[in-house]
Amino acid sequence: MRQTWVPVPEDSDFPVQNLPYGVFTPRGSNEARVGVAIGEFVLDLSAIWAGTPLGADLATGSLNRFMRRGPGEWAYVRERVTDLLTTEGERRLVEANLHRIDEVRLHLPVEVADYVDFYASEQHATNLGHIFRPGGDALLPNWKHLPVGYHGRAGTVVPSETGIRRPNGQRKGPSDPAPVFGPSVKLDIEAELGFVVGAGSTLGEPVSVDDFAQHVFGVVLLNDWSARDIQAWEYVPLGPFLGKSFATSISPWVVPLAALEAARVATPVQDPQPLPYLVEKEPWGLDLSLTVKLNGAVVSRPPYAGMYWSPAQMLAHTTANGASLRTGDLYGSGTISGPEAEQRGSLIELTWNGRDPLTLPDGSTRTFLQDGDTVTMTASAPGVDGVRIGFGEVTGTITS
Amino acid sequence: MRQTWVPVPEDSDFPVQNLPYGVFTPRGSNEARVGVAIGEFVLDLSAIWAGTPLGADLATGSLNRFMRRGPGEWAYVRERVTDLLTTEGERRLVEANLHRIDEVRLHLPVEVADYVDFYASEQHATNLGHIFRPGGDALLPNWKHLPVGYHGRAGTVVPSETGIRRPNGQRKGPSDPAPVFGPSVKLDIEAELGFVVGAGSTLGEPVSVDDFAQHVFGVVLLNDWSARDIQAWEYVPLGPFLGKSFATSISPWVVPLAALEAARVATPVQDPQPLPYLVEKEPWGLDLSLTVKLNGAVVSRPPYAGMYWSPAQMLAHTTANGASLRTGDLYGSGTISGPEAEQRGSLIELTWNGRDPLTLPDGSTRTFLQDGDTVTMTASAPGVDGVRIGFGEVTGTITS
Repeated sequence: MRQTWVPVPEDSDFPVQNLPYGVFTPRGSNEARVGVAIGEFVLDLSAIWAGTPLGADLATGSLNRFMRRGPGEWAYVRERVTDLLTTEGERRLVEANLHRIDEVRLHLPVEVADYVDFYASEQHATNLGHIFRPGGDALLPNWKHLPVGYHGRAGTVVPSETGIRRPNGQRKGPSDPAPVFGPSVKLDIEAELGFVVGAGSTLGEPVSVDDFAQHVFGVVLLNDWSARDIQAWEYVPLGPFLGKSFATSISPWVVPLAALEAARVATPVQDPQPLPYLVEKEPWGLDLSLTVKLNGAVVSRPPYAGMYWSPAQMLAHTTANGASLRTGDLYGSGTISGPEAEQRGSLIELTWNGRDPLTLPDGSTRTFLQDGDTVTMTASAPGVDGVRIGFGEVTGTITS
Repeated sequence: MRQTWVPVPEDSDFPVQNLPYGVFTPRGSNEARVGVAIGEFVLDLSAIWAGTPLGADLATGSLNRFMRRGPGEWAYVRERVTDLLTTEGERRLVEANLHRIDEVRLHLPVEVADYVDFYASEQHATNLGHIFRPGGDALLPNWKHLPVGYHGRAGTVVPSETGIRRPNGQRKGPSDPAPVFGPSVKLDIEAELGFVVGAGSTLGEPVSVDDFAQHVFGVVLLNDWSARDIQAWEYVPLGPFLGKSFATSISPWVVPLAALEAARVATPVQDPQPLPYLVEKEPWGLDLSLTVKLNGAVVSRPPYAGMYWSPAQMLAHTTANGASLRTGDLYGSGTISGPEAEQRGSLIELTWNGRDPLTLPDGSTRTFLQDGDTVTMTASAPGVDGVRIGFGEVTGTITS
């Protein structure tokens, strides 16, 4: 079992088997740089590689230049950082470049190129089908043949702790004679994972489902804030637009795929058998458990392992038509919902579109979000050596 | 009437009243820079402002750094370039930095941030409604209340002359028991204008419909290549994805809004009256005529003036929920179709989903595009002094 001399609390999200990447500015500095989290510290990688071309790529305000170097370099840096933290040889160098996480500013880790959001949970798609099309088929005919997805707004992906302003928009209830404009009254969350593309691809050349790890660098927590009333009025026939584009929050730490080897599981049985371009040789389902808190109270524990489509299948589908990938592309899994009521990853499901309000520990009730509400998501996965891999958190508070 | 000493052919797209911006590399150079088209020449603006901060922002491979400087600087540069081309004072400086357009390489003019596509032609939306929902209401209930739009893939916006590889994808006809995967058999075009955002905005602060010209820098021709069979199978409920994301072509020249003052017209009467955030004080409809050629033969002449929603309304809608703009955001008008059959901006309309094939001058027929087909779009608008403002062209050839 790998051991580090850096003190790591027993319940830390960031054991030495994790080593997630982020972008931070130390106290007293104005220069953002790339670091790796270890216990309660962040190691400044730009200082470790100072004076080298790699160091220059790490002394910037996003992970993009580092990620663009490709999977060989990702493996090299991870191995070298592991050595630095688990052997004594360069302990003084490392100690000089450790900063307490609670004393640095964390930034959006990635300059987002294109943002795509999927819809890969069968439970979530089924729940929304029941809510929006009662009496009809809950799943639409294409759903088990392809991972349904759409492009979202890359420019409004924001880092954790960014305040979320309640959006204005058009909405029209079934009995309203005309739409009205005003603040959304059905502001919701979506608990998701986000997958970050590190290495791009060539226009016209699809990326095989087997090449997932050659392109995807790592995983973040993602809250796809959603205004259900705006979305319901606008989304036919071209899909969600303003109901989703006001903000998407992601966690500051990108957990590398390499830290999730022990979490890999098969997806649920896919029936009908997917078309060949969607068939995985190696499984890329992930055994992750998320926790969603509203004002500090746990309201859901969505399990990722039950997601119907894997992130490798989503990537292969995105490029099946020859669309190219770029460094910084981000794609969300779609809301993660399990089969149990307390495993649903959105309020529209948890409250069945407002019919069954949640009661919080302070006695108040919620259908959708109120101004001042804070939503925080965390996640855990099994790591090697029996450790727990954590993701930090993604959090946001609603403002008017 | 403004006159330039640069020889400008009578039928040129680029009189001195136009001055569209592009990015080019001169013969013998490897360094792209910003230029302005005048007649058959491009003026190297990076050389005109050499040695200044503005010059540095013009000596790059996209318009983004220049556009980011904002509308005051756009006006200053346009005025200065007009002076240089219409007076003799610095003729030698200008002559030394004019390059024949046919001797330079033209590039994608803009680093695209987010790409949004609208659906703003009532004729187009009505035609597609009739084709896809025969017997039902052609226009959906939201269509006259808001400009329907969705996000597309920014990373696959390509410059004119880029080859368009026929995309693979899933399709399923009504009588097919299961979807099949293979090359699209319904490859189509969409004749559109694209609007380029030069100056961004702040998250949480909507951009008023009156502030359109403070943010939008200029206009390009845009061909939103579409695989109708892939689109039809995938697009419910979250909208188009792979049916559109393989390629979107834009023209190399960005015509500044300032060149289109004489083309401004009111949109058609909007009934019902839009909600207040969509009401324009000044009209931003545009009296432009497009021409679509297939293998050299004119197949359509879509008129832009009939578009139901103006680009200022599209911009105000995009930000109504607080979504921010970034330099380089691009939004398409949606297919431009007029009321006459020969004014339809897509093959699915021109051939009524393949029912009425087009006959080309060589005697061959087309329903959708064949490999080797070349589609070229051009456009004209009235300029000041009675001149014609042209847009150059956007062209692409289908490869297998």
